[in-house]
Amino acid sequence: MLPIPLVTLTTDFGVSSPYVAQMKGVLLSICPELNLVDITHAIRPQDIAEGAIVLADVTPFFPAGTLHLAVVDPGVGSSRRLLYAEFGTQRYLLPDNGLLTLLAQRSPPRLLIALENRAFWRAEVSSTFHGRDILAPVAAHLCRGISPSDLGPEVDDFIRLPWPQATASHRRVAGQVIYIDSLGNLITNITREHLDLLGSLDDIEITLLGKTICGIGATYAASPPGTLIALGDSQGRLEIAMVNGNAAKELAACPGTAVDVKGAL
Amino acid sequence: MLPIPLVTLTTDFGVSSPYVAQMKGVLLSICPELNLVDITHAIRPQDIAEGAIVLADVTPFFPAGTLHLAVVDPGVGSSRRLLYAEFGTQRYLLPDNGLLTLLAQRSPPRLLIALENRAFWRAEVSSTFHGRDILAPVAAHLCRGISPSDLGPEVDDFIRLPWPQATASHRRVAGQVIYIDSLGNLITNITREHLDLLGSLDDIEITLLGKTICGIGATYAASPPGTLIALGDSQGRLEIAMVNGNAAKELAACPGTAVDVKGAL
Amino acid sequence: MLPIPLVTLTTDFGVSSPYVAQMKGVLLSICPELNLVDITHAIRPQDIAEGAIVLADVTPFFPAGTLHLAVVDPGVGSSRRLLYAEFGTQRYLLPDNGLLTLLAQRSPPRLLIALENRAFWRAEVSSTFHGRDILAPVAAHLCRGISPSDLGPEVDDFIRLPWPQATASHRRVAGQVIYIDSLGNLITNITREHLDLLGSLDDIEITLLGKTICGIGATYAASPPGTLIALGDSQGRLEIAMVNGNAAKELAACPGTAVDVKGAL
Repeated sequence: MLPIPLVTLTTDFGVSSPYVAQMKGVLLSICPELNLVDITHAIRPQDIAEGAIVLADVTPFFPAGTLHLAVVDPGVGSSRRLLYAEFGTQRYLLPDNGLLTLLAQRSPPRLLIALENRAFWRAEVSSTFHGRDILAPVAAHLCRGISPSDLGPEVDDFIRLPWPQATASHRRVAGQVIYIDSLGNLITNITREHLDLLGSLDDIEITLLGKTICGIGATYAASPPGTLIALGDSQGRLEIAMVNGNAAKELAACPGTAVDVKGAL
Repeated sequence: MLPIPLVTLTTDFGVSSPYVAQMKGVLLSICPELNLVDITHAIRPQDIAEGAIVLADVTPFFPAGTLHLAVVDPGVGSSRRLLYAEFGTQRYLLPDNGLLTLLAQRSPPRLLIALENRAFWRAEVSSTFHGRDILAPVAAHLCRGISPSDLGPEVDDFIRLPWPQATASHRRVAGQVIYIDSLGNLITNITREHLDLLGSLDDIEITLLGKTICGIGATYAASPPGTLIALGDSQGRLEIAMVNGNAAKELAACPGTAVDVKGAL
Repeated sequence: MLPIPLVTLTTDFGVSSPYVAQMKGVLLSICPELNLVDITHAIRPQDIAEGAIVLADVTPFFPAGTLHLAVVDPGVGSSRRLLYAEFGTQRYLLPDNGLLTLLAQRSPPRLLIALENRAFWRAEVSSTFHGRDILAPVAAHLCRGISPSDLGPEVDDFIRLPWPQATASHRRVAGQVIYIDSLGNLITNITREHLDLLGSLDDIEITLLGKTICGIGATYAASPPGTLIALGDSQGRLEIAMVNGNAAKELAACPGTAVDVKGAL
């Protein structure tokens, strides 16, 4: 438990959707002293993979014990489970649909509970909005001090999405764009570990959609506006960006776009 | 009074408009310990009806005593009044222009005060931004403990918008789309009470813009992607949605679009 | 120091970018009791001038001692400095790239410190995200009570953008649009002081993009929908607006658009 309970929200409801505020109202009605932080509400509708990336990229920056509530939930109303999960120092409440995939690549879960105890849900549960009717009240009760074990039985499996991995061979790394950020920068699944196999970063060639970038520049500021550059992103992954521009629009790139990296001979 | 004073904000300023932050600065300058929650700043500009729907849908989820500040105010600078209002367990500060219409359909106001006492306004009041110059400081002073009766005289009337009601007759309900949510789902003014007049929900036919939907499905997850479905929304109203899609765009629907429901013979 | 430390965030990351939440996580990890307010994350990417306007327009409304963290930072990773600055009653943390230009037109800085002491930075500093790795932890440490002088050496210069000023002569004022707000209203660099040189506000003519507006109306509500009007904005500047419409779209106006004002003969 944090001295000031902290709950974050990640959804695909759209920026400033009033549905988010319904969840906040439910949370604050049960636990008025909790502190709410929005991670994003701009996950592409029902894009579980994007939700998984955002959770893995952002939540480790929060204080230990923070409770992260995520609603990207195309299966709402079906029999899909809802989970309480602990990974590393962070805690999560979310549908069991793959949102944990990327977190689980880093470390195994420390605890997984299936939400089954209706005592901590809203009295009336709609079939379309479990974020408000189940996850929000459960989060607030956790902040007030109930134990995760009060929420339901411990489980040991959870759903993982198939996840494209970059592959390395003979001075080549073949990867993909996995995420496009709000500035149009292309984040790939190629990591520093992959690139270290290729020798000097100054001599590598990066190819995507018919364009080639030579070398990995350290910063946006080092090249003239409009230049396509490759750099390490703030999470240690290969990122393709356009200086003072939007690389995704210029290249018509999207998640899944192939990215090839070739080392010097 | 709440132990931690809670103020929500609903405006048509646009998402992340810096004008919202000016209001927050004024609020926190007078009452630094208050807790601020954004309901939405994406009300369509000057769309009082949408503001009325959002206030009625969202504010009842908040703790009793929460103060809801709403600025959808095409009449700013004219002689339109500003009001303090209490409905149910919630409190409101807003222009008297119809924003209370839907709340008032559920229960009569418990208290209405016209804001006239300039002692709690900013010293300089602009003609274009009463949200910042009147409503924000009044809200903060209320949170610090002044009585609503300090704000001005009690009044007993307020403006209501004409509001389309669904009509039921001979196994038919004729209603309309009243709101399109951020996911493109169509919310109608047809309620569970209307539908209960038509017999089995499995056998009804819903028609809008030349498309017909048969039966009311319980969840998004029960039909294949791209299917147009009808379901009860999280407020108990008939909602038209497209599974994994945007119904509003696909159908070119808008607020006012007619929706007809026919019961089985 | 405020009793409840207050930190605002202004960035060009895009509305609801998860990068903003990374900064919030870092801030709350170091100082869990601080209060966070978003000013805007919708600054046009890398538009330092817009950032400068927003900081000058919004931050003076906050309580004395508020710490404003701004990240519009096209030079991230280059040798550009990061600054702690005090203007009036407010405190700032930002890159030294012109963001202070408009604040500095009102009053000289009370204190300027170059951030050089890495003791208050994150252990690992990326080359692309100094907002998260330097500014956020420095802000949180300031909220916990360290002295600005702990951050680095005092400096006495900072970068100012060239800034277009309106010019007045012979019953004419020549100015420009400097900012378009989220409702499409055009904010100009023509102030009340300029207009007072022209005599009666009722008799002046305002011309932009081939359209002429006669007189300065006090409010949006005084003219019929679709009318182009001129009024004093909430900061005392000349604003061009369309009643119930979007002036920027209708006129195809943008920052830099010339605005001429002519007094009566």
